[in-house]
Amino acid sequence: MIYVCCSLMAMGSFAQQQLGQRPRVQSPVVNADGTVTFNFYDPSAQRVSVSGDFDEIRSQRLNMTKQENGVWTVTTKALNPELYSYSLSVDGQRFVDPANSYVNRDISTLSNIFIVTKSNDDKGHLYSVNDVPHGTLSRVWYDSPTLGQQRRMTVYLPAAYDGKKVFPVMYLLHGHGGDETAWGDLGRASQIMDNLIAEGKCVPMIVVMPNGNPTCNAAPGWWHEGMYTPDGNAFNQRGAKASMEESFMDIVNYVDSHYKTIKKRSGRAVTGLSMGGGHTFGISRLYPETFDYYGLQSAAARVQQNDAKFNEQMSRLFSSKPRLFWIAIGKEDFLIQQNNGLRQYLDEHKYPYEYYENDGGHIWRNWRIYLTMFAQKIFRD
Amino acid sequence: MIYVCCSLMAMGSFAQQQLGQRPRVQSPVVNADGTVTFNFYDPSAQRVSVSGDFDEIRSQRLNMTKQENGVWTVTTKALNPELYSYSLSVDGQRFVDPANSYVNRDISTLSNIFIVTKSNDDKGHLYSVNDVPHGTLSRVWYDSPTLGQQRRMTVYLPAAYDGKKVFPVMYLLHGHGGDETAWGDLGRASQIMDNLIAEGKCVPMIVVMPNGNPTCNAAPGWWHEGMYTPDGNAFNQRGAKASMEESFMDIVNYVDSHYKTIKKRSGRAVTGLSMGGGHTFGISRLYPETFDYYGLQSAAARVQQNDAKFNEQMSRLFSSKPRLFWIAIGKEDFLIQQNNGLRQYLDEHKYPYEYYENDGGHIWRNWRIYLTMFAQKIFRD
Repeated sequence: MIYVCCSLMAMGSFAQQQLGQRPRVQSPVVNADGTVTFNFYDPSAQRVSVSGDFDEIRSQRLNMTKQENGVWTVTTKALNPELYSYSLSVDGQRFVDPANSYVNRDISTLSNIFIVTKSNDDKGHLYSVNDVPHGTLSRVWYDSPTLGQQRRMTVYLPAAYDGKKVFPVMYLLHGHGGDETAWGDLGRASQIMDNLIAEGKCVPMIVVMPNGNPTCNAAPGWWHEGMYTPDGNAFNQRGAKASMEESFMDIVNYVDSHYKTIKKRSGRAVTGLSMGGGHTFGISRLYPETFDYYGLQSAAARVQQNDAKFNEQMSRLFSSKPRLFWIAIGKEDFLIQQNNGLRQYLDEHKYPYEYYENDGGHIWRNWRIYLTMFAQKIFRD
Repeated sequence: MIYVCCSLMAMGSFAQQQLGQRPRVQSPVVNADGTVTFNFYDPSAQRVSVSGDFDEIRSQRLNMTKQENGVWTVTTKALNPELYSYSLSVDGQRFVDPANSYVNRDISTLSNIFIVTKSNDDKGHLYSVNDVPHGTLSRVWYDSPTLGQQRRMTVYLPAAYDGKKVFPVMYLLHGHGGDETAWGDLGRASQIMDNLIAEGKCVPMIVVMPNGNPTCNAAPGWWHEGMYTPDGNAFNQRGAKASMEESFMDIVNYVDSHYKTIKKRSGRAVTGLSMGGGHTFGISRLYPETFDYYGLQSAAARVQQNDAKFNEQMSRLFSSKPRLFWIAIGKEDFLIQQNNGLRQYLDEHKYPYEYYENDGGHIWRNWRIYLTMFAQKIFRD
């Protein structure tokens, strides 16, 4: 709705522009037909293009055309409902679009975002802030005795949380290069949860998004290491006192002692993407009777076939009969062979699990889908 | 400390660069002598400059020089400890620095930020995340019966908040074009409060940062209006059911019923900048026995000399003997004449107040100073 309005404003500002006057550019403009127009003013540039995930799965570059008023423009094909990311390339240099103040950070790179939505039951709507009751999103510092640190995590409390009623908890883990802000920003976790809960598609639950890098107290810029340039490799494990998995019960204990939670297995789920899927797999083996629901999303989950301890852990885990062991991955994910290996192992041992495979690779677009699916599967019984 | 290290890394990456290879650029680099170097790779650009508040008060533009490897560079004079904002201009177009993922949004404009700090008692240190206990920062949705809306505010709970002990509350209001994120992002409110509290310079307190635009439920992108281009004028009052001041007790009532607060006058302070200073002034007159501490920062605070209701409100306010009525403004602030008028009125009526005047104008640099001062003045007795 609003985008149609923006589109008219953009046309209006172009029409009114006088020769020599700097035009006020609106970008992006999501048009009524689902196409999206990008506009960028730069009379002296030679080559301008926009790169984004318009092609569903892979990044796509669209060359922009300069108009007489110095505004470069390009319009996409009609896009499906989705949250899209993009950036501009101006004479070979990558920039965020100066007309769009909505950006996400992925490791050290900022990209612009926009949403296309057509109806109230599409993904664009699910990822949007709608006129529904909203949960509280908090950045919480907790004590981790195992790591000897104060650490930061993100806690989503559902709108119905009133400090009296108890709620189940989903622990939602990020991947390599991520931190406690990743699922909220790139994953639209609070919008997805607000909307699923409002529509009655999942039960109201607390969602805990910790930082999975045991040598970082918090996201870049939010701890005492200063405003360093984030680097996926710099801080993950080097010199850590313990692994994410080994220190994980510090988080569960903090959450159970500070929030109104269902303090038993049936009230706890854990899921994560990539490295966080690996953490989920490790946690499932270390604490087999603590959680009832596991979700491995594009997981780095290596089977240690010849490791007696691994086999024993797996046997204990599945003897404890978790209600859900869910594996989700895209056909083009570079970890699909590893996940096939895990499935083969589970099949051979007759360990029950659910499997979901879709198109695409190791991308946020898929992880938002997996979160949406997992949230609807848990705490139902 | 970390910046010295970054500086070496930057030099290292330049030295190792081969002809034709894209150099890995580090920017900004805060050098050990307090100068700051900006680097930007663009072999085809004709003119590149950096603009920022390096000159303390006004924006300053520094032309960058292209080196043989295609990297443009410039180094500032030694800068005083402070949080700085800047952007790049590349052939006349404004961009954020692609090498710096730390940005702040002011209305619709993103700028990069960095901090210069030299010692543990300077402003740079005060605005940094240090290794001290951290408070919890939450985005909370509350019900405003007066405005007929669910609305979003930011709540800072001090590290000592344990759900048992009660704390005083500072209500901290943003200016025109701002929202519930402004004091946290541009004002570094949680860093300032964490550090002042850790150093024993102010008492532990709750800080509530509401949204002062009565027709916006929340900051741009965080309510159901979608990802519109923020505009300082678009949403402030048009069609509002009530003003910020008239609906303000909805916020106080929510805070008092959801947090462990000191539910009386001596446990409540209100302060704001510019429009929020005007709100503070209005709130002081509407609810004269609700707050004990008022802080008007660069306030839009008009004296209505010939208005009987205004004079009566002022008389009631000062008869109620608030513990602090504080006015702070910069010498170059465009609102200084209006504030002089307010002081003249207070003087004529012998209404007691405190006054602080410093250099500079209507800028965040001053509002961070005023927050730091005000926080240390309140809840002491």
